[in-house]
Amino acid sequence: MGTRPSDTPQRVINTAAEMLATYGLNATSIREVTKRADAPFGSTYHHFPGGKQQVLGQATALAGQRIEQILEEVLKEGAVQGVLAFLAIWRERLLQSQFHVGCPVLAAAIEEPIDGGADDARQAAGRAFAGWERRLSQAFIAEGRGADDAQALATMLIASVEGAVAMSRATRDIAAFDRVVQQLQGMLHPVA
Amino acid sequence: MGTRPSDTPQRVINTAAEMLATYGLNATSIREVTKRADAPFGSTYHHFPGGKQQVLGQATALAGQRIEQILEEVLKEGAVQGVLAFLAIWRERLLQSQFHVGCPVLAAAIEEPIDGGADDARQAAGRAFAGWERRLSQAFIAEGRGADDAQALATMLIASVEGAVAMSRATRDIAAFDRVVQQLQGMLHPVA
Repeated sequence: MGTRPSDTPQRVINTAAEMLATYGLNATSIREVTKRADAPFGSTYHHFPGGKQQVLGQATALAGQRIEQILEEVLKEGAVQGVLAFLAIWRERLLQSQFHVGCPVLAAAIEEPIDGGADDARQAAGRAFAGWERRLSQAFIAEGRGADDAQALATMLIASVEGAVAMSRATRDIAAFDRVVQQLQGMLHPVA
Repeated sequence: MGTRPSDTPQRVINTAAEMLATYGLNATSIREVTKRADAPFGSTYHHFPGGKQQVLGQATALAGQRIEQILEEVLKEGAVQGVLAFLAIWRERLLQSQFHVGCPVLAAAIEEPIDGGADDARQAAGRAFAGWERRLSQAFIAEGRGADDAQALATMLIASVEGAVAMSRATRDIAAFDRVVQQLQGMLHPVA
């Protein structure tokens, strides 16, 4: 399939999101993204006049939206089934990548820009986390939880999955992720 | 206080750990660490012939040991009190740094080296997580939990705190961290 020039901005954003998930924020340079996206260097600056932070911000926002769409889809099965399906997707992603690929939004959240510039990506990560929390909270409320309880459980779920992915990447072993899933299952039992 | 030349390796490692916690792994270059540690560039390579990954590996190991020492200290008060004290230390760290500083071990866990080289830091992060898990598991077992339950709770605790720190950094708001603490308090009640 040929690549039309008009695909370039989307390809740059996709490549940046993939790089974020594997190498983190500060390693995702315009030079490296452009090279991996097979895009002309000058055109990247043409499409993204804000440079690196504009690309990283849009890549983080896109990654956040994709994960929110997955959440929306799986939660149609109900909160508990939906969350379990979401956890299964993450488990598969870890195994498929042999623990090399994680969450682009987490990467954007934990690295200050080394050049001290704008932090579009960090802000986009904050909005992504908030969006996922809202989506999960709504599902928990629909199953009978109070608003505060639902939000706290949603935050706990996101935090523990992000941490579990990192622990399994560090140990190159799915065991940590599976232990967190086991603990989450205990927390997810529908309110009687 | 004067800085003796023999302090240089330790200063380089400390600076690398601080940079990891703020800027992540790939931004923590020998050049930048050397500059911030006010160390002679040549001497860094003299002390660390393995280069960047040797420095990052030792910095991650040191950071992991320090956190394990804090855990050991607070857990003398018992598992529940100890964990609550540990959470209070993390909360203070987030607020004091205005959400700019996180966990160096998490940073080492989630970034593949962009140069495709050795991954000493990632391996050190895996050992750090395992060490913290052991320490917490022992405290939970001492309070009456079974070994599997204790380990799963320990993993959950580490994962959710790591994720909560990242979420609060992203949102520049302690609320996510506090919601996770609230959920953990519910899980920590001693086994009757």
